[in-house]
Amino acid sequence: MAPFAGLVEELVRASLTDGQAYEKLALLCRVAPHRLSGSQGADRAVEWARETMIRDGLENVRLEPVLVPCWERGDTAQLEILEPPMPSGEGELRILALGGSVGTPGEGIVAGVVEVTSFEELANLGGAARGKLVLFNRPMDPALVNTFAAYGGSVGQRGQGAIEAARVGAVGALVRSMTTLRDDSPHTGAMHYEEGVDKVPSVAVSTLGAEKLSGLLRDHPGRVRMRLRLDCRTLPDRPSANVVGEIRGREKPEEIVLIGGHLDAWDVGEGAHDDGSGCCQVLEAARLLLASGLRPRRTLRVVLFLNEENGLRGAQAYYETHLEELPLHVMALESDRGGFTPRGFTTDGNPRAAAMLAAASSLLSSIGCSDMLPGSGGADVSPLRRKGVVTVGLYPDCQRYFDVHHSENDILAAVNERELELGAVAIAALAYVVADLPERLPPNEVTDGESR
Amino acid sequence: MAPFAGLVEELVRASLTDGQAYEKLALLCRVAPHRLSGSQGADRAVEWARETMIRDGLENVRLEPVLVPCWERGDTAQLEILEPPMPSGEGELRILALGGSVGTPGEGIVAGVVEVTSFEELANLGGAARGKLVLFNRPMDPALVNTFAAYGGSVGQRGQGAIEAARVGAVGALVRSMTTLRDDSPHTGAMHYEEGVDKVPSVAVSTLGAEKLSGLLRDHPGRVRMRLRLDCRTLPDRPSANVVGEIRGREKPEEIVLIGGHLDAWDVGEGAHDDGSGCCQVLEAARLLLASGLRPRRTLRVVLFLNEENGLRGAQAYYETHLEELPLHVMALESDRGGFTPRGFTTDGNPRAAAMLAAASSLLSSIGCSDMLPGSGGADVSPLRRKGVVTVGLYPDCQRYFDVHHSENDILAAVNERELELGAVAIAALAYVVADLPERLPPNEVTDGESR
Repeated sequence: MAPFAGLVEELVRASLTDGQAYEKLALLCRVAPHRLSGSQGADRAVEWARETMIRDGLENVRLEPVLVPCWERGDTAQLEILEPPMPSGEGELRILALGGSVGTPGEGIVAGVVEVTSFEELANLGGAARGKLVLFNRPMDPALVNTFAAYGGSVGQRGQGAIEAARVGAVGALVRSMTTLRDDSPHTGAMHYEEGVDKVPSVAVSTLGAEKLSGLLRDHPGRVRMRLRLDCRTLPDRPSANVVGEIRGREKPEEIVLIGGHLDAWDVGEGAHDDGSGCCQVLEAARLLLASGLRPRRTLRVVLFLNEENGLRGAQAYYETHLEELPLHVMALESDRGGFTPRGFTTDGNPRAAAMLAAASSLLSSIGCSDMLPGSGGADVSPLRRKGVVTVGLYPDCQRYFDVHHSENDILAAVNERELELGAVAIAALAYVVADLPERLPPNEVTDGESR
Repeated sequence: MAPFAGLVEELVRASLTDGQAYEKLALLCRVAPHRLSGSQGADRAVEWARETMIRDGLENVRLEPVLVPCWERGDTAQLEILEPPMPSGEGELRILALGGSVGTPGEGIVAGVVEVTSFEELANLGGAARGKLVLFNRPMDPALVNTFAAYGGSVGQRGQGAIEAARVGAVGALVRSMTTLRDDSPHTGAMHYEEGVDKVPSVAVSTLGAEKLSGLLRDHPGRVRMRLRLDCRTLPDRPSANVVGEIRGREKPEEIVLIGGHLDAWDVGEGAHDDGSGCCQVLEAARLLLASGLRPRRTLRVVLFLNEENGLRGAQAYYETHLEELPLHVMALESDRGGFTPRGFTTDGNPRAAAMLAAASSLLSSIGCSDMLPGSGGADVSPLRRKGVVTVGLYPDCQRYFDVHHSENDILAAVNERELELGAVAIAALAYVVADLPERLPPNEVTDGESR
């Protein structure tokens, strides 16, 4: 790593005195605060990203077509407690439709409620859930220091809850929000349906709402009745695009080091952390390198993916569009864990690649970001793993992420400028080193030998 | 460290599922948001701390008398631009009197302004500063990742500015706020006078205010005139107290491991990070150990100091009160760098002690808090260093601290519950290990052999 002495210090100085990641993010959050795939906001975000890349001096800036789903939240999301009688002002729980959910009839669905904390518990209810709404109330485990692990342990009820509810004859799913906070902000997110299983509506309730409802069920067994009204709907797919720009390599331009994030975001809050931060960090990483006159041996490619949140169509489109080129993808790095102080990276690299990456990340010890942990890159680069591409994910401090994730609180004010800029430095440094090393990272094994 | 296997995991689980550091902090910020030494708020904070220790089951809970200074901010802090004529609404800069400043006559001080970025520059002005207000406008260096280093590089103009200004015949000091943010919140803090040098008033201006004023001075050389009005004042010293409680050691109760923070806080904001967080973390560290049935070999002593911000009288009183006992102080750990995600510690321990401390902190790698860096404990435990006591400071992520430090923005909402609780875990674990190790940390050299 001797040739890279001074690299991090130079990038840190440039970034902390005159970095533009936060400025970019402020603009993105103003131009397109709501940019769910298929929305006009997403179109504006795509155009903003293209213009930003051109202004920053990236090369080969282009839009790569992606056909994205178009789900609209609508105007109505109401969950009323009909029984037992509630004091005035306490008869409604704040909810958000989960992304992809069907709506309800205009008059809503009126039903009783059963509560479970696992799919096993639901299956064991026998017929008791038939005709009911199912409250999935498994909290994220607050005891896990790694909040992503806690998320992983509970998010299944959000993604699969409606399917499992429908399997037992329930008429809807009410899912506890994925956060360790006890507050009244529901957190949305993706949910799925399965071919051959009834499509029932599915909503997020806040953690306090879930606990209130749980208390009612305990205190008034068999008596709780609710009305759920939703007018969300799915429209036909719409054309959109991944936004791509490059710093062409000075010696091996055909070899690619990809850095990316996702432009789409949930339609509440501003997607400031998820994943405006990641987008602005990778854009800024490229700008920092250009501004410092650092053109690596290999090509650095910035990719802002569409539709990470509810379909992964951008990731799939990139995979398909660049299939022939994937063996030349030396690394694909994603930033999609929030714009907090960077602590290190996760990687699925083979032992030799991981050792090289660890040597590279050790250069970042001066900013406290030298960890290179086992893991992977993230959803957008995950398809590339099938072709042996080594993926890497930026790993920031994770204590605050799920406070805001997918909620109205994911706004610019929740992002700290210095923390965000340091993440851009970390990405710039790691990507530059990997793109500039004489030896390329050895690829992983190809797990999918087919051309598709 | 084998005897301590599982310790951190147990503390983490207890803390992240049922920790009370944040709950304590919320209460402190409600009971005594303003608790500058000598104020009624400080009295309430002392009583709150005593009650909290008793409720949590600490032993030998007591108040140890401290005579503290009593400076009052007053109601008026006004800095008007008289010349050049300003557009309506732009003729005043937001300021805060620096703690300890004298006031002005009722009609204020009217004077021109000179700007400097160093004391050398001020001295070189010759007579040009005579009769003027001096704008000390040296920014914190944003390029330093360690914001405490950036603070250290600029805070001299706050502490000494009034003295240096008076030396050259100036009539007041206007000091750029100690933050890397560009915003309009002034940050207060301590300033000093020197025997035999005129006492001139000294105030903090926001960073944007300082830049605006700097622009006026550039655009209207020699023409800027301002009026400064302050009614802050110093009253006679008042009695107050350090609050002390213990977990008595099971084998060597006479040997002391001290953990502390400071109860007093500036009278703007709520002192949530500075140093409500530190106080609540050390209180909570003791509670966590008690709740887990962990009574160490040596005595763990919790000390909440008074008057860190503007006098250090509590630190000095502790030193004097416990002078005979200081050789038995194995370690003194302070938390006074904000309630952010803990990253490690700093210590002034001799090589052998530092190695033992590093072995102890390595137990905290699972929460990312294993660093044991050269440095020291903090202001409150600094007098103890003269007697060879090894001091340690908790070192949290530092990117956000000076955004809020000593300003109206240092409020509970700026503290993240999980980040705060993890700091309590870090303190509990390190203090417990040091208090329980068969071998005591070897003391540092005594640098002050006198009994006083």
